[in-house]
Order: sequence, then C-alpha cells, then structure tokens
Amino acid sequence: MLGNKNRMLLHSLKTFVTRGVRGKLQKVIQKAHPADLGLTLGHLPPAMALAVLEAIEEPAKKAQVLSEADPELAAELIVQLAPEEIAALLSEMYSDDSAQILENIDDELREQIIRQMRQAESEEVQERFDYLDETAGRIMVPDFLALSPETTVAEAITALREGADVELVYYIYVVNEAGKLDGVVSLRRLLLVDPSTPLLAVMVPDVITVRVDEDQEEVANRVERYNLVAIPVVDDVGKMLGVITVDDVIDIIKEEATEDILRLAGTGEEDPLLSGSVLRSFRARWPWLLASCFGGMFAFLATHWFEDLLSRVVLLAGLIPVVMGMGGNVGTQTSTLVVRGLAIRRLDASQLLRVMFRELQVGGLLGLAYAGLVGVLVVAFEATAGLGNLGTGVLRLATVAGLGILSSMLVATGIGTAIPLLLDRMKLDPAVATGPIVTVSIDVCAVLSYFGIARLLLSF
Amino acid sequence: MLGNKNRMLLHSLKTFVTRGVRGKLQKVIQKAHPADLGLTLGHLPPAMALAVLEAIEEPAKKAQVLSEADPELAAELIVQLAPEEIAALLSEMYSDDSAQILENIDDELREQIIRQMRQAESEEVQERFDYLDETAGRIMVPDFLALSPETTVAEAITALREGADVELVYYIYVVNEAGKLDGVVSLRRLLLVDPSTPLLAVMVPDVITVRVDEDQEEVANRVERYNLVAIPVVDDVGKMLGVITVDDVIDIIKEEATEDILRLAGTGEEDPLLSGSVLRSFRARWPWLLASCFGGMFAFLATHWFEDLLSRVVLLAGLIPVVMGMGGNVGTQTSTLVVRGLAIRRLDASQLLRVMFRELQVGGLLGLAYAGLVGVLVVAFEATAGLGNLGTGVLRLATVAGLGILSSMLVATGIGTAIPLLLDRMKLDPAVATGPIVTVSIDVCAVLSYFGIARLLLSF
Repeated sequence: MLGNKNRMLLHSLKTFVTRGVRGKLQKVIQKAHPADLGLTLGHLPPAMALAVLEAIEEPAKKAQVLSEADPELAAELIVQLAPEEIAALLSEMYSDDSAQILENIDDELREQIIRQMRQAESEEVQERFDYLDETAGRIMVPDFLALSPETTVAEAITALREGADVELVYYIYVVNEAGKLDGVVSLRRLLLVDPSTPLLAVMVPDVITVRVDEDQEEVANRVERYNLVAIPVVDDVGKMLGVITVDDVIDIIKEEATEDILRLAGTGEEDPLLSGSVLRSFRARWPWLLASCFGGMFAFLATHWFEDLLSRVVLLAGLIPVVMGMGGNVGTQTSTLVVRGLAIRRLDASQLLRVMFRELQVGGLLGLAYAGLVGVLVVAFEATAGLGNLGTGVLRLATVAGLGILSSMLVATGIGTAIPLLLDRMKLDPAVATGPIVTVSIDVCAVLSYFGIARLLLSF
Repeated sequence: MLGNKNRMLLHSLKTFVTRGVRGKLQKVIQKAHPADLGLTLGHLPPAMALAVLEAIEEPAKKAQVLSEADPELAAELIVQLAPEEIAALLSEMYSDDSAQILENIDDELREQIIRQMRQAESEEVQERFDYLDETAGRIMVPDFLALSPETTVAEAITALREGADVELVYYIYVVNEAGKLDGVVSLRRLLLVDPSTPLLAVMVPDVITVRVDEDQEEVANRVERYNLVAIPVVDDVGKMLGVITVDDVIDIIKEEATEDILRLAGTGEEDPLLSGSVLRSFRARWPWLLASCFGGMFAFLATHWFEDLLSRVVLLAGLIPVVMGMGGNVGTQTSTLVVRGLAIRRLDASQLLRVMFRELQVGGLLGLAYAGLVGVLVVAFEATAGLGNLGTGVLRLATVAGLGILSSMLVATGIGTAIPLLLDRMKLDPAVATGPIVTVSIDVCAVLSYFGIARLLLSF
C-alpha cells in the first residue's frame, strides 16, 4: 500500500510515461525522493518501470533509486541495460546494496559485470561473496573511519570532512597499527572535547562488535539489545573489517520475520510471490504438504481398520474432519506461539514443563467448550433435520464427538508445545520442522483417540 | 536463548543469590552491562530476579536494568517494591520506557505511582496516556534539542553539552518562535562548518516527520524507507512535540511482526504465553477455532446429505480428511504469502488478477502431483492390505480421490489469494480476518466439490 504522496507520484509517473512526455517525467523524477521513486517502481508494470529508470539522467540518482527498490526488482530491471552501464551503476552504490542486487543476477552475467566494475569496487564486491549468505561479512560495508589512538580530535574532524564516501557516520573507530579495534568515539563526544585531545583519551574502550562469520540474526540481536546505530565487524583476532548500520539491521529483522512466517505456513522462505518461476514455488511448497497428505491418508487407513464400526454408524465418519480440524488448529496456535516465543527470546527450552502445563489448561478449556458446542450441534441437527440412519442413539454419537474433540485438542496443545521446544533443545531451527511434525503427530493421535473412544462407547 | 557471555552471567547470578553472598553478587552486577542484566532477569525464577534487582544499589543502574528488561516482567517485579521507590525508579527512566512498564500495571496502582512521581516527570508520563495506544504520541520522547534558526553552530554545541538528559542525539532540530519545526542539522554537519554560522544556513529545510496521531507502523515505515536514526513528531500545524529514535522503531517492527504471526495462527495478538491468566488465552483463541469448527461441521452435514452414497461406499468418507486437509494447507500457504506480501508492501490489491493467475498455476501443479500420489496410495492399499468392502472399483475410488484433491487445491489457492487482497481493498486488516474466512470457504468448497465428483462418477 502506498501513502497519498506516493500514490500521486505513481499516478504522475504512469501518466507521463504513457503519454511519452519525457520533459514532464523528468521534472517529476527530479522532485521526488530516491526512496519514494524506488518504492514506486515496484508498483509499475515492468516496461513502465524501465522507462522511468531510463528517464533518470543523473547516474548517481539512478543508482540511488535502484538501491532503494526491492533488490529482486532492481536486478530484473538492471539486466536489461548494457553490462558496462550496469557495472557503472553498481559502482555508484554502497557495496552492501550492489551485492544484494548482484545476488539476484545469474552467475554468468554477474561474473561479467564484476569484471567490468572498477578494480577497487569490484574487489570489494567480490570479497563479499567469500562470506556465507546471511553472515555479518555479507552485509557489512568496508568503508569506515578508523584512526590511530594518537590522532587528535581536530585531526579526526578533518578526516571526517574528507571521508565523504563513508556511509552514515555516527562513530569514529580507533585502531592500532595492526588494524585491531581498540575503541570508539561518538560524534557527539568529538563536539564536546578540546580539539587537541588525542582520541585515546576520549574513546570508549570496550566496543561491542560482531565477528565476520556470525549469523545476521545475531547481528540484529546485538544492535537491538545495546541500542546501537552501527556495529563494527571484526575477524578472529579483533581486526576491524567493516561496519553494519542500523538501517541494514532493520532490513534483517524484517527479512527474518518474513522467513519465520513463511516457514510456519510451510511455503519455505524461498517462495517468490510474483516473480520467479511457478516450478520454484512448487518445489518450495510440496514438502510441507506431504506431511498433511500423510496425516489425511492415515485417517483413510483408519476408516478401513474400523470399517465394521463405520458401516453400522455411517455418520461417525462424518465427524472425523471436525475432530482432526479442531486438533490441528489449536495445535497450530500453540506451536506458533511457542516458535515465535523462541524467536524473540521470551522462551527457552528449559521452560518446557511450565509452558506445557499452561497450554494443557488452555487446550482443556477450549476442548470442553468445543466438545459441548459440537455435541449440541449434533443433537440439534438430529432434532431439526433428522439424521436418519444413525444406527445408534443420537446422545451416544454426540458424546463420542465431544470426547473425541476434547482428547484431540488436549493432545494437540501438548504436542504443539513439546515439538518446537524439543527441536530447539536439539539445536534445530523450530520454525523449519515444527509445522510438518506437529501436523502429522496430531492427525495420527486425533484419529486414533477418536476411533478408540467410538469403539469403547458404541460397540456394545 | 542466551549467548555464552550471558549464560555465564546467569549462572553467577543464580549461584550467588542461592548462596546468599551479597558482596560477590554485587561485584558481578557492577561489571555487567545493564542490557545483559535486563535480559538475564527474564531467565531467572521471579523470586531470584527480585533478589538480583534488590542487590543493585545504584538507583540509576536499577532503573536502566528495568528499562532493558521485558516491560511485562519489569512491571511484575517493580510492583513488589514500595510505591515511592517505584515512582523514584520510573522517574529515572526515559519516559517511553517508564510508560511501557506503567502500561502493564493495574490502573489503580498506576494512578498512585504517577501521583508520587516528580511533578514534571509525572506530567510527561500522564500526557503520553492521552494519545492512543500504538500511535506516535505514545512512543515519542518529549526531550529533544530544539534551537532557533539564528543560533550559531558554536552556541548549538554549547547547548548540546548542557543537554545531558536528551536520549541518543544525532540531530539538532531548528524551530521558530511558535515551536514549528523548520529544519534539521546532523551532528556531522555541525562538526564540519564554521562555528559562527547560524543554523539557518546549515540546516536541511525539508524534514521528514510523523504526525502525533499516526500509527506506529507508519512511523516504522518512514524511518525504514528514509534510513533515519530518529524522526521528529509534530502536531497538525507542524509544531514539534517529540522524537522517536531508531531503537524504538526496531521494537515496533518486531512487535508488529509478532502480531502478524499470531494473528495468522488465530491466537490473537493478545495471547500471553507464560504469564497472564489461562482465561485470557481462552478468550484470545476461541473465535478463530469457531471457523474451523463450522468448516468441520459442514463436512458432517454433507455426509448426512450424501448418506446414500456413503452407505454404499463407506471408504469414500475416509477420504474426506485428506481432501479437506490438502485444500486447507495449500490455501494457508497462499494466504500467508499474500498477507505477508501486503504487510511488507511488496503486493497491493491492484495486483489481484496477476497474483491469482500465478497461484492457480502453482495450486494446479501441486494438485496434480498430490492427486497422483493419493490415487496411487489408494490403489496400493487395496493391492497390499485389501480394502475389503469397497462397494465399487478401486480405480474409480482412486479417481474420485485424485479429482477431489485437484479441485480442492485449485479452489483453495484461488480463495487464498482473493480473500486477503479483497480485505485489503476494503481497508480491513488482512492479517486479522483472512484465516477464518479462508478456512471456512475452503472447507465448504472442498467438501461440496468432492461429493459432487463422487456422485458424478459413482452413482451409476
């Protein structure tokens, strides 16, 4: 959804591209903020987006707009330009932005572009691909202001004036001759002390850092916990390699939340929504559905095992969906709460028993409520529509339905708590495996307990 | 999950609290970062957490630790202190942090504490409660550095030196006599210009702001889009009221993601995981389950309508769960993708047809694959176990199952795309209502199409 301002921008862009009035189009582009243009590009049909991009004359602004657009979209648009122009545009960007776009370009073309980029830029981007995806190394920018401890505050300010290329500066880093990070000075502090003071005297020595091979989620946690606006990245021996700023941390947090949401729904984090091939979506989604298929087929097998009972009381089969469905849904509620609780660190595996005890109470209460409701509905259907060939008393059928639902919901909350907490204790990512395991286990338990109860109450 | 450092901290705290060695406990506390202590509190049993809190002698540090802890936990701990001490501690905090803790305290005690807080502090906190929950007004801090346009850079630096109480300063705001925000100057810029320059000459005039009544989600979007570290909050006429810093924006983003995840799972955003009453969880969760209950009971009614058919082919009923389950799961995958796409603004309602076309292809492909699998499984069960009283040919039953699954999965992807996009177009929050509506619609369509196909293929 776009705000009012951007809806107007979108409208102007569409109008002027359609009419082909380049002059007016360029005037609109000139007045718009690159972030707004980048956002709006995603709401234009691809051909129009390309036309807007081509109407941006200044290469620096074109690069900024692409940096602000969705990286997949930026890659889609940029590949339609000549490799030299792509290389020139990417060289204009901060290297974290250009790397994100390059990630979405085919290997072959990517190599070609990197070869075309200026030597220094190209090495910087190339090095980034030496680090694993989703690590600090992949997202850091290697441009930062690092000075020796003997530098005076006045000299630091001069250095700051010259370092125009450095992304969002809030701190100056103090490193020794070997490049080891020894301290940090905030800009505010620089303003408040005597210009002749050496940095050594004003720096904060215990710097909170991340190691270059640490996971991006850990980066986000640390920036969040200590309320930082930038965090330095170091290697094993403490040598400073780069810096990650809070705007990138925000992107990480949103990305990780999206991954968790999609994993919980069983679509895999890879499913492309609009772009990308249908086959890729198919591959991302089928594994999770397999679990649900096995759960369903288990119910089929069970109807075979209990065919005697069913042929006497046909409507018993009609209640399987509600018994399985209620268990499955309350189990998903529970496991989602637990998985999210683990992700935002409000829970850990040591609390298994405490959480399970509470969830069983909630499950029991919900189970009682829905057992009652379904029991009443069964009786009401019989009273109004007449359920016909019941083969047994309606009250007995209602009791079986109610007890089936209660037991399936109780079991479901237990399973929904236990599985993610156990996966977490086994150092597996609960967001990935919880869904399928919980689904199959609940389906199997719900069906078995339902038929068990039915046999007990209906077979005499 | 705690990192190594904090696991060690947790261990020391536990040991020294258990042994009652106050001296050692205080030494550990002195050396630890308030953020780490705040985090660790959540992993201690309540009685121990309180003991740790009481061992912190310096009130300023005690306040910091509580600010960094989970606000619900902080409220739980703090209410065990005397009202005067609570008031004193809350007065030490930034007012956004104290307000978060106060939100979790009973109305009556809250009033009492607010009365005890120092006049100025208390007004600040009280005013915050005049703004609606989840708006900019509720989260802004009213302390910021605002100077007149004639102020020189040198004077601004002096003001900065004196404004020790202002949270995380990165910008100086320029306001006119009426308090209207006219421009902004970054600290970096202050360092680089001549000290005698007036702020008017160095400020950036077009400031990106939020209105005090705007939703916190909008605040987060704007900070994210323009890569800000702080955003000023203004009223209708542009008067500056406060500032929201990026660390609070990170909290908002995580909170909103959690809300979306919990809403999608149908637990409501209100479900307390560990604390809070079981009844509150019950109330948060039952509405969503009602949808699933109605879907399941519809299947029951359908078995009644088609009882003739079922009494001839009992195993037909055994396949209802797999047909409904596959539809429900693929529909949830699709609707989750769409809801998240809307939340992170990669999608909007205008793309309905394009997204649906793509989703139908994915649903069709998955439907074909699972139709084949289930068909083969039915035949295989017959071949190995012997399905007994089939009442019809096994191939016909397999065909009905396969076609039922294909049609239910196709319909499910269509519904899963359409509902959230239509809700969004109707200006309703898709995360709230999508789950129940999608569930019921898919259940009904899946059951009807399955029995329709069965009647067509099996009734002659």
